[in-house]
Amino acid sequence: MDHNQTTGAAGESYPSTRRIQRLSGHLSPSEHVHPSIPPQLRLQACARVNLEVDTEKLSVYMRGKHRELQDKVYEYFNSKPELQTPLEISKDDHRELCMRQLLGLVREGGIRPFRHVFDDPGKYFALLEAIGSVDMSLGIKMGVQYSLWGGSVINLGTKRHRDKYFDAIDSVEYPGCFAMTELHHGSNVQGLQTVAKFDPLTDEFVIDTPNDGAIKWWIGNAAVHGKFATVFARLILPTHDARGTTDMGVHAFIVPIRDMKTHQTLPGIEIQDCGHKIGLNGVDNGALRFCSVRIPRENLLNRFGDVSRDGKYTSSLPTINKRFAATLGELVGGRVGLAYSSVGVLKIAVTVAIRYSLLRQQFGPPKQPEVSILDYQSHQHKLMPMLASTYAFHFATLHLVEKYSEMKKTHDDQLVSDVHALSAGLKAYITSYTAKSLSACREACGGHGYAAVNRFGSLRNDHDIFQTFEGDNTVLLQQVAADLLKQYKEKFQGGTLAVTWNYLRESMNTYLSQPNPVTARWEGEDHLRDPKFQLDAFRYRTSRLLQSAAVRLKKHTKTLGSFGAWNRCLNHLLTLGETHIESVILAKFIEAVQRCPDPSTQAALKLVCDLYALERIWKDIGTYRNVDYMAPNKAKAIHKLTEYLSFLVRNVARELVDAFDLPDHVTRAPIAMKSDAYSHYTQYVGF
Amino acid sequence: MDHNQTTGAAGESYPSTRRIQRLSGHLSPSEHVHPSIPPQLRLQACARVNLEVDTEKLSVYMRGKHRELQDKVYEYFNSKPELQTPLEISKDDHRELCMRQLLGLVREGGIRPFRHVFDDPGKYFALLEAIGSVDMSLGIKMGVQYSLWGGSVINLGTKRHRDKYFDAIDSVEYPGCFAMTELHHGSNVQGLQTVAKFDPLTDEFVIDTPNDGAIKWWIGNAAVHGKFATVFARLILPTHDARGTTDMGVHAFIVPIRDMKTHQTLPGIEIQDCGHKIGLNGVDNGALRFCSVRIPRENLLNRFGDVSRDGKYTSSLPTINKRFAATLGELVGGRVGLAYSSVGVLKIAVTVAIRYSLLRQQFGPPKQPEVSILDYQSHQHKLMPMLASTYAFHFATLHLVEKYSEMKKTHDDQLVSDVHALSAGLKAYITSYTAKSLSACREACGGHGYAAVNRFGSLRNDHDIFQTFEGDNTVLLQQVAADLLKQYKEKFQGGTLAVTWNYLRESMNTYLSQPNPVTARWEGEDHLRDPKFQLDAFRYRTSRLLQSAAVRLKKHTKTLGSFGAWNRCLNHLLTLGETHIESVILAKFIEAVQRCPDPSTQAALKLVCDLYALERIWKDIGTYRNVDYMAPNKAKAIHKLTEYLSFLVRNVARELVDAFDLPDHVTRAPIAMKSDAYSHYTQYVGF
Repeated sequence: MDHNQTTGAAGESYPSTRRIQRLSGHLSPSEHVHPSIPPQLRLQACARVNLEVDTEKLSVYMRGKHRELQDKVYEYFNSKPELQTPLEISKDDHRELCMRQLLGLVREGGIRPFRHVFDDPGKYFALLEAIGSVDMSLGIKMGVQYSLWGGSVINLGTKRHRDKYFDAIDSVEYPGCFAMTELHHGSNVQGLQTVAKFDPLTDEFVIDTPNDGAIKWWIGNAAVHGKFATVFARLILPTHDARGTTDMGVHAFIVPIRDMKTHQTLPGIEIQDCGHKIGLNGVDNGALRFCSVRIPRENLLNRFGDVSRDGKYTSSLPTINKRFAATLGELVGGRVGLAYSSVGVLKIAVTVAIRYSLLRQQFGPPKQPEVSILDYQSHQHKLMPMLASTYAFHFATLHLVEKYSEMKKTHDDQLVSDVHALSAGLKAYITSYTAKSLSACREACGGHGYAAVNRFGSLRNDHDIFQTFEGDNTVLLQQVAADLLKQYKEKFQGGTLAVTWNYLRESMNTYLSQPNPVTARWEGEDHLRDPKFQLDAFRYRTSRLLQSAAVRLKKHTKTLGSFGAWNRCLNHLLTLGETHIESVILAKFIEAVQRCPDPSTQAALKLVCDLYALERIWKDIGTYRNVDYMAPNKAKAIHKLTEYLSFLVRNVARELVDAFDLPDHVTRAPIAMKSDAYSHYTQYVGF
Repeated sequence: MDHNQTTGAAGESYPSTRRIQRLSGHLSPSEHVHPSIPPQLRLQACARVNLEVDTEKLSVYMRGKHRELQDKVYEYFNSKPELQTPLEISKDDHRELCMRQLLGLVREGGIRPFRHVFDDPGKYFALLEAIGSVDMSLGIKMGVQYSLWGGSVINLGTKRHRDKYFDAIDSVEYPGCFAMTELHHGSNVQGLQTVAKFDPLTDEFVIDTPNDGAIKWWIGNAAVHGKFATVFARLILPTHDARGTTDMGVHAFIVPIRDMKTHQTLPGIEIQDCGHKIGLNGVDNGALRFCSVRIPRENLLNRFGDVSRDGKYTSSLPTINKRFAATLGELVGGRVGLAYSSVGVLKIAVTVAIRYSLLRQQFGPPKQPEVSILDYQSHQHKLMPMLASTYAFHFATLHLVEKYSEMKKTHDDQLVSDVHALSAGLKAYITSYTAKSLSACREACGGHGYAAVNRFGSLRNDHDIFQTFEGDNTVLLQQVAADLLKQYKEKFQGGTLAVTWNYLRESMNTYLSQPNPVTARWEGEDHLRDPKFQLDAFRYRTSRLLQSAAVRLKKHTKTLGSFGAWNRCLNHLLTLGETHIESVILAKFIEAVQRCPDPSTQAALKLVCDLYALERIWKDIGTYRNVDYMAPNKAKAIHKLTEYLSFLVRNVARELVDAFDLPDHVTRAPIAMKSDAYSHYTQYVGF
């Protein structure tokens, strides 16, 4: 491992005999031990080249509490070929099939996801992941029904709404929509323009679309199936002053949109079909325009604000902004679900890409058999850090689900704010990573990766929008940065930091001192694979970015105002948000390694965790070098070790993907079948 | 511009009054001049904030010689609504439509691309780009017919083939296939297993598929329309020794696959449909299995090797490897076409994304109107370097087409080798970049980017395979690296370098000396925007990578053999290939700026070129920092200037995309119409 592209000269750390031993180790990987690893680490810390991974043990450690529930979903669809989505299906047929899939699952398969939204979110997210792997359209259709439409009714409403709607939402008797986004406003929810004006004469709200920019757009379940919609609109109340009305800000209202019996669109409501999307065409997204649509006063979802018979507003929360925050705060579950499901998509893609890369042989030494393409350094470079990231994200999202479930039970304020930023950050970071990885996996599988049956196309097209809905990733990362800056200010005002950012207390002090010129040169493998070094490096970067962002924002605010200053620092703030999330992911991965009870499983996870950490550090090496946190020799050593760890992970790559425990009828790609993949593929096309 | 994320302290290069001037300049961009620019550059080198771009002049400079031909294609399809591909179409219908589009264009539209493959490749590639923008399936179908099937017959055959096939290929009376790839062999063409055994008794070749791995796979035009195929197979000749036969290596043969009248598959040939692909479903890819299929001896495409009536082999080329290289060398035109068309795809995507980002407003300063999302620093960071790269690639591929056309005329050996590496490198680099950018553009357009009608989905799905076919990008970049290493060796053996790599002669010497500690600290804008500094930096990096790769390969070859050594250095070699191509792209861009006759157009191009150069340098800043080629202050200055140039380019972004001169009926996305985009969009869904 002497990749000299940065210095040109050969590394001379090892005597030449050792070097040769290592070199030949690369060619016949199972026979040699990496000589630079101290003996005490060889058995213990997983660095042996001939590491053995017990897939079953690793799988048990990974798959969590809800695997049986997921298997029930897999089995249901496996037993119903007529409910499986074919490769070619028209938009309209796909929408009908998707509805049949949902009804089948709920009414025949005995899966009732709605209650889990409230009583056990972990179960709900596990269901969502499994259902999404059958057809992502179905996962999203289910999310619209239970998390968005159902969740808004229950979380933003009160007992009267629960009593009236819960059972019929649960059974899909009341299919519904979540009508927040408008043509002109997506991210800026406070800018929505639809109005709901209270009419005291009739005790009704009158819903109107004041201009075409306010048409509700992309509303799932609206084009075909929805009977109701939770409509977000500005609440307008009559006043007795000269203005005549007052705008109370965005509130949510239940609006019936189609007749329960005839399914005709109700008067005053115009619904158009948003048409074909890049993916998720099983979901019927529609656009809604309202013209004087009247709904009874009790259709206001009144948990955070209510209107009395005589048009008076009451709320337990003092300001429009606080009520708005509370309303949106109830919706973070969607982000948790997307982060979690995105890891599920990544697992399928990584499994297909790695199994095929082990199978596929191309070129080789002269007069010798061809080698697996996963034996190429370049292919390891493409896929092994991705495999490591998949493991990292797995543990991070499990942690997120735990925190979220705890929050739903305790409603602890600090936890609420913590989960808000963490779900925003993990959703943004993971879905962006998965989106890029799906393309990389396709490309890594060459021409056969381009066959629709091998999954990358539909996974990519369906998953793509994960980066946008439930919060645009660029906007969400800014929420993370904003939260960090808030924490940072509070620290300097003597307050306490939320648990997730607690590390900032310590590392901010480290940051204020100069980097240590001695440790900046340490390059031994034991040091580089020490979790303390890795975590310190991640956190150092975040702390520096945080401190410098605070300084820059303060300065620019004076001349540009807060909006201008924020925009001037925007790239910086996005990097800050990302690095913080990476720090959290690494911390959770390290904990998961340390918690693992079985030594050989722990060794495998440690190897994967080291690759995750060092590859990330190498990708940001310019930053570390610029402040001399790492000297050139250390940078080079990290690069070499990253390549070597990719090579080690490659040797257990099959076991690592097998541990995701995805049955062949879930991965489905012929080129990734556990045995006889090429035969499955030739049979598929008719030979 | 004081992005301190790497140092934390505020930059203090400018007096505070100037600073305020600059800061306010960002808010009202057209009123201020960037104060750090020396007066002599303000008018001359495009650095003025209120730069004015004359779209018409820029467009004339950009669009090249063949615009009229392209307009003829656009007009033909614009006048034929029944030939336009709808958003939803079944695979089978799409294939039929695609064939009708091709026949219409050729027989009714008066476009005859085939002759241009030989007499004026520039025209052919311009046609390919225009046709691909109508429907990429049609572009590829045309490429299969004329460049692959037709090109192989004419380039690998001799007069007898030209006389017999040219006219019928031209008129699509003989639709044909290019049957090279097999199930088990794509990149490794020399590993193909299909055999063509000469039978002297009947004066025929007998084509056989010896095992399922040798089934011809992904063969365009095979599933439905093809009458013939150029089949690549190992030529087996009888010998009079004990072995009985000898393998002469891979040769190309014309094999009729379907009956001219009945269209029935001919005896001994089994054709299956490869089925749905991620994109390009208008192209009918099939799989072919041969069982003792007999073809006359004259069906051998015998330009580089022939078999006589008595089974004797003759060739003007001495070895199997040389004949193989000559055969494949005739096929580089495909790569030129893909690189060129990929830029065409990128132009459409960038146009749609930028027009919409100017239109779309979201958030803004308190109590003020919302701002265009392209006013956000993060959005500029996403799209402005991409726009700069599009310009860079435009000039690079024009250069490639010129070199290719020259090569087809002169057959100069050095030019052949130069074009071979250049086409491989540009195809790999540009198609990878475009693939990533298509995803970034979709994401930059948020939810409305996910509407199928807005193009990103079909562009991405259709373009995706550009990274794989006509040579897997990872393999192609290795060819660039291998060529550089060959040139490097020849240099040290006193030989001459090919024109494109000529710079290596000079910069290799620079490389051997230590970086200059004085210039490593220079951070002035005039220095950073000096093309000499930029090109030196690019070339320095390539030279270092080349020299260190040569050293490492030599060392490892001793212990690992050449295959093992190559693999050990593979990531390094791929980076080498990429950086070399980047050097070529920058050099051609700088030349194009210098050649531009109109001063204000030149100024706009210079701005874009600077952004391209500096953003690339910043992305590789770790490498430069590691060898102290650039000091931390310079690294920081480059980062700041890159953000500032993105801001400047944003101010002329509309004009820069308008200069691509794509009519609305070519971009087609409602959200990117030149006026009233939102109305086009609401009308599209039915309002």
